[in-house]
This record gives sequence, C-alpha cells and structure tokens, in this order.
Amino acid sequence: MDHENGGTKPEVVVGSDESKTHKSRHSCMYWGILLLLRFLALSATVLATLIMALNKESKTMVVATIGTNPIKATLVAKFQNTPAFVFFVAVTSIVSFHNLVMLLTDLFGYKFGFKGIKLLAMTILDMGAVVLLSGATGGAASMAQLGKNGNTHARWNKICDKFEKYCSRGSGALIAALVGIILLLILNVMSTIAIHKNTRSSSAH
Amino acid sequence: MDHENGGTKPEVVVGSDESKTHKSRHSCMYWGILLLLRFLALSATVLATLIMALNKESKTMVVATIGTNPIKATLVAKFQNTPAFVFFVAVTSIVSFHNLVMLLTDLFGYKFGFKGIKLLAMTILDMGAVVLLSGATGGAASMAQLGKNGNTHARWNKICDKFEKYCSRGSGALIAALVGIILLLILNVMSTIAIHKNTRSSSAH
Repeated sequence: MDHENGGTKPEVVVGSDESKTHKSRHSCMYWGILLLLRFLALSATVLATLIMALNKESKTMVVATIGTNPIKATLVAKFQNTPAFVFFVAVTSIVSFHNLVMLLTDLFGYKFGFKGIKLLAMTILDMGAVVLLSGATGGAASMAQLGKNGNTHARWNKICDKFEKYCSRGSGALIAALVGIILLLILNVMSTIAIHKNTRSSSAH
Repeated sequence: MDHENGGTKPEVVVGSDESKTHKSRHSCMYWGILLLLRFLALSATVLATLIMALNKESKTMVVATIGTNPIKATLVAKFQNTPAFVFFVAVTSIVSFHNLVMLLTDLFGYKFGFKGIKLLAMTILDMGAVVLLSGATGGAASMAQLGKNGNTHARWNKICDKFEKYCSRGSGALIAALVGIILLLILNVMSTIAIHKNTRSSSAH
C-alpha cells in the first residue's frame, strides 16, 4: 500500500492524515505489547536466576551406627556443586541484564526514532541471548533429569528422593527459564517481522 | 541510495544498467556464500547426528575373582543410555533435515524470487532450529562434563576413564554441533540483514 504512493510525496504528507493517526495508534499498541513482553521476559529470567542462585538444602542423615549411637552427617545440596547450574545462573544473569537494557532502550529510545539499525542490532542481540539461554537451560535440565531419575547404566543414583525441596526449586527455575526462552522467541519473531515492515514503510516516505 | 531514486522511475529502469549488473554480481556472490554456509551447517549437524548415534563402546572388565578364576563382565556404553544424548540425536536429525530443506529452497527457490515472505519464514524457522540445537547441545554437553569429571558431591563417578573412545567420540559430536550452532547463527544474522536490505530495495523499484 505504502510504496505505491512512493512517487507522489505531497499526497503522503498532506492527504493521509487519517491513515497516519490510525498508523500511530497501531504502532502505539505494538509498542505496548513489546514493552509488556519484554517486561515479562525480564521477570522470567530474573526469577530463574534468583530461584537457582538461592537454591540450597541441608539435610541431616544417619550415616552409620556405633553401638547404639547413630552417627549423623549433614549433607548440603547447593547449585554451586553442579557446573551446569553455575553456568545456568551466569547465563540467566547475563540475559536478565540484556533484557533490562532492551527494556530501557524500548522505553526511552523510541522517541529518537532510530528504527532501522536499532531494530537490527536489537534483533541480533536477542538472537544471541535466546541461543545462550537455551543452551544453559538444556544443560541444567539434563542435570535435573539425572538428579530426578538417576542413571543405572552409569551407576549414578538419583538424589531428588533425599533433596526434594532442592529439586522442586530447581524445576521452578527451569520452568521460569523456559518461559523466558518462549517470550524471547516471540520478541525475536516480532522484531524480525517489524524489520520486514518498517524498512518497507520507511523507504516509501 | 536506492530510495532517493524512488520518485523518478524512468531513471531507475533505463539509466542504471551498470549499477544493475554490479548489483546482480553482488547478489550472486551473496547467494554463493549463503549456499556454502548452509552446506557446511548441514554437514556439521549430520556429522553430529552420526557420530553420536553410532557411539558405542564395549569393555570387558574383571568384576570379581573366585579362587583364581577372574569373573569378567562386559559393560557397554551407548548413547541410548543417556536421555540427554537421545534428545541430542533427535534434535540434530531434525535440524539436519531443516538444513537440507533450506539448502534445496536456496538452490531451487531462488529463481522464483519470492524474496520477502520466503526470507521471513526461513529466518523464523532458522531461529527455532538454532534454539533447539543449542538446548540439545547444552544438555548433552552437561552430561559429557559429568562423564568426564564426575561429581563428588552427588557421588556420581566419572566414566570417561573407562570408556575413553566413547567419550572422545561424544566430544566430537558436541564440537560438530557447536560448529552447526555458530554457522546457523551466522546464517540467521545474514538473513536478518538481508530482510533489512531487501525490503528496502524492493520497495524502491
């Protein structure tokens, strides 16, 4: 529609006031959805970071009995003991920071109107963020699965029967990260479509 | 540059023969690079699938001694025993198929010239592929790390001291998948930039 008017500039500027208002209302709604999704993605990744980083459970168990005296030992399950969880916390922190910066850019950078390159850069950064987050979540999920079910072939026993809270909190962090991945993917698709559309309409002006 | 000529159509059609030849040569080179990268990405994911799917090592070990007779047992390490590796094989197969379809689309779909929507759809599919591949690779990598180093806190012993070949082949598959991720990311960035440029130039015609 837009680029058919490309050759007749006066018409675009003067004659289409109504369509312009319509367009700006449409773009306002789009902006709102974008902000909301980004805020939700930020919340999800921050939540994933916090739940995993604060995940710690102590359990006192009887490990042996000498005569009638039970010998107790306190075992602690914490995220630092599993490299995949440490990586998870590192990556969710980075992606949270990324989401925060993007949220602020969306909020305050909008009026500057540097659409083309800004959108391109944001999309490429988002792409990196979602790939990183997905890798870290995959790693953490595979350790969580091992903790839950164990692996008889490798003689790795499950630990979730002893550390129930630790495991359910870990699952919570994973679900939050998964929600973050889905939201980031939606944002990514939206901004790719926006590049497709925006460059179209901006080159018609 | 292009859209400055947007208002003066005759000039674009008649006057810029030289720039058109230059453009088509440029686009031909771009197409070649695209095909090469896609072919490499396909090779990397197929390689990752095959190495992981064929990964199996048998080892006969002395498990006990009765009198002077050693009792031997044959242990087999195979990818099917680890859910994260099964997921890895499934995902690398899917991504390989995706890469094959994209390669064929690039090869034969180019002359149809359905640039805009085709590029958009391919970019979005690529995005999904790279996120899936990254998650699966993260999961497999975290199991590989456990097999290599073990985890004393959870009393999970390393197994790579016994199954060296199994582990080195697994690492090979992970490296191939990582190369695939990087190539897919490059392709993704390239096609996002192409959307940015293509829609610009196509709306100027």
